[in-house]
Amino acid sequence: MTSRKKLQGLVAATITPMTPDGQINLPVIRQYVDYLVNKQTVKNVFVNGTTGEGLSLSIQERKQLAEEWVCQGKDKLDHVIIHVGALSLPESQELARHAAAIGAGGIAVIAPFFFKPTKKDELVSLLQKVTSEAPDVPFYYYHIPSLTGVKIRVEELLEGIKERIPTFQGVKFSDTDLLDLAQCVHKNEAQQLEFLYGVDEQLLGALAVGANGAVGSTYNYLGRQTNLMLEAFAKPDLALARKYQFLTGEFLNFVIKLGFGVAQTKAVMTFVSGIPMGPPRLPLLGASEEFIAKAKAKLDSIVWPDGN
Amino acid sequence: MTSRKKLQGLVAATITPMTPDGQINLPVIRQYVDYLVNKQTVKNVFVNGTTGEGLSLSIQERKQLAEEWVCQGKDKLDHVIIHVGALSLPESQELARHAAAIGAGGIAVIAPFFFKPTKKDELVSLLQKVTSEAPDVPFYYYHIPSLTGVKIRVEELLEGIKERIPTFQGVKFSDTDLLDLAQCVHKNEAQQLEFLYGVDEQLLGALAVGANGAVGSTYNYLGRQTNLMLEAFAKPDLALARKYQFLTGEFLNFVIKLGFGVAQTKAVMTFVSGIPMGPPRLPLLGASEEFIAKAKAKLDSIVWPDGN
Amino acid sequence: MTSRKKLQGLVAATITPMTPDGQINLPVIRQYVDYLVNKQTVKNVFVNGTTGEGLSLSIQERKQLAEEWVCQGKDKLDHVIIHVGALSLPESQELARHAAAIGAGGIAVIAPFFFKPTKKDELVSLLQKVTSEAPDVPFYYYHIPSLTGVKIRVEELLEGIKERIPTFQGVKFSDTDLLDLAQCVHKNEAQQLEFLYGVDEQLLGALAVGANGAVGSTYNYLGRQTNLMLEAFAKPDLALARKYQFLTGEFLNFVIKLGFGVAQTKAVMTFVSGIPMGPPRLPLLGASEEFIAKAKAKLDSIVWPDGN
Amino acid sequence: MTSRKKLQGLVAATITPMTPDGQINLPVIRQYVDYLVNKQTVKNVFVNGTTGEGLSLSIQERKQLAEEWVCQGKDKLDHVIIHVGALSLPESQELARHAAAIGAGGIAVIAPFFFKPTKKDELVSLLQKVTSEAPDVPFYYYHIPSLTGVKIRVEELLEGIKERIPTFQGVKFSDTDLLDLAQCVHKNEAQQLEFLYGVDEQLLGALAVGANGAVGSTYNYLGRQTNLMLEAFAKPDLALARKYQFLTGEFLNFVIKLGFGVAQTKAVMTFVSGIPMGPPRLPLLGASEEFIAKAKAKLDSIVWPDGN
Repeated sequence: MTSRKKLQGLVAATITPMTPDGQINLPVIRQYVDYLVNKQTVKNVFVNGTTGEGLSLSIQERKQLAEEWVCQGKDKLDHVIIHVGALSLPESQELARHAAAIGAGGIAVIAPFFFKPTKKDELVSLLQKVTSEAPDVPFYYYHIPSLTGVKIRVEELLEGIKERIPTFQGVKFSDTDLLDLAQCVHKNEAQQLEFLYGVDEQLLGALAVGANGAVGSTYNYLGRQTNLMLEAFAKPDLALARKYQFLTGEFLNFVIKLGFGVAQTKAVMTFVSGIPMGPPRLPLLGASEEFIAKAKAKLDSIVWPDGN
Repeated sequence: MTSRKKLQGLVAATITPMTPDGQINLPVIRQYVDYLVNKQTVKNVFVNGTTGEGLSLSIQERKQLAEEWVCQGKDKLDHVIIHVGALSLPESQELARHAAAIGAGGIAVIAPFFFKPTKKDELVSLLQKVTSEAPDVPFYYYHIPSLTGVKIRVEELLEGIKERIPTFQGVKFSDTDLLDLAQCVHKNEAQQLEFLYGVDEQLLGALAVGANGAVGSTYNYLGRQTNLMLEAFAKPDLALARKYQFLTGEFLNFVIKLGFGVAQTKAVMTFVSGIPMGPPRLPLLGASEEFIAKAKAKLDSIVWPDGN
Repeated sequence: MTSRKKLQGLVAATITPMTPDGQINLPVIRQYVDYLVNKQTVKNVFVNGTTGEGLSLSIQERKQLAEEWVCQGKDKLDHVIIHVGALSLPESQELARHAAAIGAGGIAVIAPFFFKPTKKDELVSLLQKVTSEAPDVPFYYYHIPSLTGVKIRVEELLEGIKERIPTFQGVKFSDTDLLDLAQCVHKNEAQQLEFLYGVDEQLLGALAVGANGAVGSTYNYLGRQTNLMLEAFAKPDLALARKYQFLTGEFLNFVIKLGFGVAQTKAVMTFVSGIPMGPPRLPLLGASEEFIAKAKAKLDSIVWPDGN
Repeated sequence: MTSRKKLQGLVAATITPMTPDGQINLPVIRQYVDYLVNKQTVKNVFVNGTTGEGLSLSIQERKQLAEEWVCQGKDKLDHVIIHVGALSLPESQELARHAAAIGAGGIAVIAPFFFKPTKKDELVSLLQKVTSEAPDVPFYYYHIPSLTGVKIRVEELLEGIKERIPTFQGVKFSDTDLLDLAQCVHKNEAQQLEFLYGVDEQLLGALAVGANGAVGSTYNYLGRQTNLMLEAFAKPDLALARKYQFLTGEFLNFVIKLGFGVAQTKAVMTFVSGIPMGPPRLPLLGASEEFIAKAKAKLDSIVWPDGN
């Protein structure tokens, strides 16, 4: 891990392409990789997460997808992080071993959300059991309390975590509690950790308190514009950064009101990229034609500061 | 299904026995069946549910457990219901096929709880896909909104469900909304459905509005006393029924204040039955010695109306 | 308080009649009292509670209403309980003194819900300060966690409460946690307390575990039928009691789906009783004509077991 | 309102000083004003809000406090905003008239939180009724969904609000939803509105998306440091701004873990300023000695970038 390139900037939370009859559409991944790199200027991916319907797939399907992303991403992507969280510990461990075996650049684990840990020790013990199956692979904790109901603050979780999980590398921080995020950044400055923000519609606020980058579904189709926001922020040209955040927010705000979830994200990605993402898997139902028409019209109506 | 015996009375939500190192302890099931029948007067089981840590097991483990319960329960138990719900539809379907193949007396499916259905159609479509894999096996919907966050009212869900799911047989109703339960009973009187209540500590209230029986973890170790409550209610001797509910409630109220979940249930069952249930699986941690001592003392202190 | 008649059976949570321009319509109370007694066979009232929009009124208005109910109820009603809870302690104390001065049969206090007590001592200290201003008036704690967010269990609250609040007489228990209710009943059998259930649509379940009666808005317009349910339960004729609960539940279930709150209750009471209850006060908006038409048709369609 | 100075920068959410026996301690206000201006460099106040226990006071007490702040703030403070929200519309209107009569620089109204509006029209109608009683006083909507449970997004609320409420001037935005805040800023750029952020521990994130200033309890005792953060942000010197946010966050994070509410804020302000804030009013109980000792030690341990 010594020569590892630091993970920063944008990470696309990948969508899982499916055929019309609901099977994984592996052949599309190659095109998807090229699209992210060439059109969206995004060179990192987070596979089998929430956006990828990872928990709706079978273990076998998750392995196939992980392999395809690692394979197709070779020499093109900087980091391929495989989400290996599962409600069942042995299955999560199996996925971690598999990710290590195929050469994944990182693994991530969501907090278990059926039996919800309320104490740090319950959660760290579980994470340790999973990550020890991939002892050479950088590990990211996937914090998303709005979906898991697990409210253990990250800042507390991180105290002493390196002693128990030597591969600990960072956090996909999908929460609006910027106090927690800021304290994570502040207290771990010496450790070269990576805090990747996961609430796309308010990334600029997270950058202000020190996030290193972002993981999100939005970067599949608004990655280019968000990278321009990151550049503006780095200068710093706050007025320009804000302009980009306002405009991506305008789109997200619009679709959130219509009802925006993974099914709708698949539809948006399909019309933006031209790559067929297919339907979602049950319990999700596909986006309506009405949604697609409105979302497309809205996105087309936005004029970005660079004129595109 | 014509000669099927109606499922009523008590159903034990089975605990999954584990060895000290966290593997499934299959050989204990035989003893467990005999204990339920002979000591607790309980002749129905619900396998791989919440109490059984079903969602913490691998698919392979769930199949092994299901087989063992069906096999050991043959000629001893009246109904063996296998919970086949899973976040992944193909895995849930696989479990349904397996349950059918081994001759399970029923299958049950929890609402998906990562992507949470908010509309009836999303949920029924999923249930239909699973149950159609076991077209001759009675199906029970497992309603537990406090754990799943899925709040679709059962009374609404049931409208027209028989047309889409011919095997629909009833509900494990684990919610305190007795208006919903009462309307389910009321509107489906002609259909011979079975409504099994799942909030053990307030079963008497559910009986009053027409529940046919109960599924719960408590009936592993307080099944005998609860059956006496059912008998008293049937007479009706409400004062005696209430006395039993007060006393089981006194125990449950006591342990709930100490922190009572599946891990603690395993410990209680171990000291009551003498059968080693073993530790829970992560993210659950085992009950503390202090909990066990207090819970045992409390249970021992209760004098039941029949003098036992 | 020695010769006090025990409060049991039904208590109507009174609606506050208003003129079309939003002022309190005091002259209607006399007719309202007669209607409750003669048509609904209900002889107890709970004034200025949730249904009465008590917290939307000024202190002066609350006093006027309390006076009118006590005055008009004299010799006609058995118990007039005045809700004196308020977010401001001095105002709550003022209302308690006033209730005592006008000869109210009881006072009730809701848990404060802006700053929400999380510890028993915070809540009891507040209740003590209020009730000590009315040292001869029976006091009822008004427990409604779904509205207040205050989740302190009543069973815990009651431990030792008589020592701190000698006037403590019972609880308006508006929660679906029947374990809590049952333990309250069970642990206080010697004390002659009164537990009045407040979730109208599932009263039968609460009766089963020992509730003494009920307080609710439904008893304004379905008091007669609910009293028949109480009678059936007392016999016991559970099948008949259940029939009544099913039918009131059928109405409530129907209107709840349409959106049912205090504004809609006012409209229902107006068309059932013929007494003009007027509009609600902001932030509530009046029921729609569509709601009124549908609710009326539904209620008219129900055939009660006694043929009415 | 033409010559009105724009409200920006910091606004202290004032604490209500009380005597040991729980009465309002008016004479202390003068000293309090001087302290804010001279020691904390804060020249705006928000009176009778959450921090000020406004809803725990009687109407009379609220008027007295409002008068004292307006009177003592004359020629010293830039803006004195009086919170006039109340559960009772007539009382809220009375407070609005009073605020206008005494020359308040602004009024604010919290969303009603007992009957919670779920539709924009319910909320705007109420706000209109209150604000029309003070037709020349700038009005701020007080958005704090974590306390009120009212989740109507501000961005939606603001559409067309000026037509119905001509005095609408801005929002005290106490929520972590920065998408909502950013859209409010973005869509109303032409209107010279003021968006004052109210989640003190993550102000920097809100500044990044365009907040004009902040209202909060923290600025009573960390106003000077926060003003230095605002200055750094304005340059922009983001590293320095972040340093200040980290350090105030370090204190807030520490006390939040200990249990931090209005009672504890009163205690912190007392030891920092030397002005006796007194105890809180029930249902709040005073901070423990242990809390005070720990909080003081923590605050003393922090070394600010300017060496103080």
